[in-house]
Amino acid sequence: MKIVVLKFGGTSVGSTDRIKKVAKIITSYLPKSYKVIVVTSAMSGVTNELVRKSKEISNNFIAEEYDVLVSAGEQMSCSLISGRLNHLGYKSRSWLGWQVPIFTKGNHASARIKNIYKKNIIKYLKSGGIPIIAGFQGINSSSRVTTIGRGGTDASAIMLARFFKAEKCIIYTDVDGVYTTDPNTIRKAKKIKKISYEEMLEMASSGSKVMQPHSIQDARLNRIDIEVRSSFKKAAGTIITKRKNILSNKIIRGVSFTKNDAKITLVGVKDKPGVAASIFEPLYKNSINVDMVVQNISSNGKETDLTFTIKSDDLSKTEKLIKKNKKINFKKIIVDDKVSKVSIIGVGMITTPGVTYRMFNALAKKNINIIVISTSEIKISVLVSRKDLNKAISILHKEFNLEN
Amino acid sequence: MKIVVLKFGGTSVGSTDRIKKVAKIITSYLPKSYKVIVVTSAMSGVTNELVRKSKEISNNFIAEEYDVLVSAGEQMSCSLISGRLNHLGYKSRSWLGWQVPIFTKGNHASARIKNIYKKNIIKYLKSGGIPIIAGFQGINSSSRVTTIGRGGTDASAIMLARFFKAEKCIIYTDVDGVYTTDPNTIRKAKKIKKISYEEMLEMASSGSKVMQPHSIQDARLNRIDIEVRSSFKKAAGTIITKRKNILSNKIIRGVSFTKNDAKITLVGVKDKPGVAASIFEPLYKNSINVDMVVQNISSNGKETDLTFTIKSDDLSKTEKLIKKNKKINFKKIIVDDKVSKVSIIGVGMITTPGVTYRMFNALAKKNINIIVISTSEIKISVLVSRKDLNKAISILHKEFNLEN
Repeated sequence: MKIVVLKFGGTSVGSTDRIKKVAKIITSYLPKSYKVIVVTSAMSGVTNELVRKSKEISNNFIAEEYDVLVSAGEQMSCSLISGRLNHLGYKSRSWLGWQVPIFTKGNHASARIKNIYKKNIIKYLKSGGIPIIAGFQGINSSSRVTTIGRGGTDASAIMLARFFKAEKCIIYTDVDGVYTTDPNTIRKAKKIKKISYEEMLEMASSGSKVMQPHSIQDARLNRIDIEVRSSFKKAAGTIITKRKNILSNKIIRGVSFTKNDAKITLVGVKDKPGVAASIFEPLYKNSINVDMVVQNISSNGKETDLTFTIKSDDLSKTEKLIKKNKKINFKKIIVDDKVSKVSIIGVGMITTPGVTYRMFNALAKKNINIIVISTSEIKISVLVSRKDLNKAISILHKEFNLEN
Repeated sequence: MKIVVLKFGGTSVGSTDRIKKVAKIITSYLPKSYKVIVVTSAMSGVTNELVRKSKEISNNFIAEEYDVLVSAGEQMSCSLISGRLNHLGYKSRSWLGWQVPIFTKGNHASARIKNIYKKNIIKYLKSGGIPIIAGFQGINSSSRVTTIGRGGTDASAIMLARFFKAEKCIIYTDVDGVYTTDPNTIRKAKKIKKISYEEMLEMASSGSKVMQPHSIQDARLNRIDIEVRSSFKKAAGTIITKRKNILSNKIIRGVSFTKNDAKITLVGVKDKPGVAASIFEPLYKNSINVDMVVQNISSNGKETDLTFTIKSDDLSKTEKLIKKNKKINFKKIIVDDKVSKVSIIGVGMITTPGVTYRMFNALAKKNINIIVISTSEIKISVLVSRKDLNKAISILHKEFNLEN
């Protein structure tokens, strides 16, 4: 049985008109002798509205009931899609988490899929039916409704593809694929045909919001090819796959960026063991995400300067936490909330020397000052002044031949 | 275990503020050493919105998926109520139809409750929990979601009261009880303390929309006392109970009415067997509800005049159906769409002679012409000109001592 898993995101099912279009997309797979398993998000806006209600009821709404509440969103959208397919003359039914069943482990509101019972769905597929499965939900061992914390319906799709050994897993969304950089910022951005899991993970965590990083990681671990494509226009999307499936001589796959960063430098920090932990512990406890960290070796061995970046929105909170932190000593705090991060990403840099030099040189030639540098195996990130951001993206996009 | 079933209707849970009030009502029963089972409707407007969406998807939305769709409404409201009780420090959880489970029989969208599995809920009650059960929903023998066609959440409440042998079944709604007549029409209308099932049934079918007639009938068959009261103000409501529980010397319990009726008279109908069936069959097939029917015996034994009433809204459709009905012959059709029906209702009339005379005489004294008369064991209805309606209600309300 050749199975394809189709996942539709919130905007793809955002109205009854959109749901009618989704039904057409689903039926387009049938002549290709595929058995289709559909998994859907809630209609866009529905989940937020339910979360808003839960907050009106309690500023600390109990997780068990939160799951019952928000899972209603996918219940509504999957029944509407199935209703449309029935209207068009196809055999289809909705499957809620407890009906499949999809078993989860872990806490309410942040459960993970442990097992998917296959028999019912296989039988239904064999009978010619199109199952529309409610994403983002499952049940735990006490038969309580749970929701998937990491990746939501993307995670449901990937786990369905894994358990049913699907040939394809297609994520329908409101963008038509992954681009070499943000097409709204750089006009010459190109759609990427194939990208490796690792590159996609770096793109995702550097600001390209196509798929949840956790879901990409799940796909990587289970070796599931994913195609990300648009439910709004007919065009091939981007395939996220194993490195060895990618035949391309590009060293760099894409340029990603985050715009609104802030930089904090603590000058003259006492350099003793555990000082970095003392600085970052209260930030972690307050859910402030520290991104780049640079520590200079102190000349006298007693003091050091420590620089790190955070989201601009977290700046004032962070400053307060630092200043009232009695565990640390420093001479001065320097703050810059007008910085941005640009990253180049590509598995090609592992085997190609000189990428770092090319990057720095290209920026230097246009007088763009690099404030902080951070590297990983397949990514080089630099912090620049926000006024230089678009120029930097454009230069790097051109330097690494991403325009063609 | 002294169990009380509390049912909350759509307006009672119509907003998160309302749900907070409902949580307070629920907890008010706990010091009275009751075990409380709550059953709830969807927040007002939610079901209509879901039905609207289903109609946008298909003018003939499949019933199996309709049930999945609309049952999400009660799923949301029951989790919000439970969330609020948890916020207040009480042990509570939501129970969906499949979790209890509540087993239904019959077709989708018009299922009836067949059985309620008690063990899980009893165990939960004994552990000190407050179960909040989603009304209007159950599952069938194929583990598909079903909704209760007749009476909806009222029916759920009565069946819960029956299966759990509840001492009380309290229907919280947006009216504070059953009145001797519509308090918006007649200022002197009084709240009825106790009313028999039979009287309530006649009141309901004559236009007093406090509870679904089917649910009252279910309560009657199962001998379950119901209290109808307001979740908006603190005041005793109306108890619907067995006749023998009612100690009251009132002959008449109330005056009900329907305002927008229409009357059709077919003059000179051929009087042969089956002619009435021929007239009413197409109306029945088009879901037109015929209310009062009067047929005069023909003087020559060959022709007759037949008069019947319908809702004004159905008049033009009915006229068309009659005129194109080839199975019937008549000389003339007379139509009056400015009539209303007034009814007096009371079990007391069974044992008290002269009620009919008193009714007709009271109307006659005020020059109100009676167009059609129809009687049942505990009800007398008369059709009057719509301009006389309010006067007629007022006269009868006074005549039968309902003002005090």
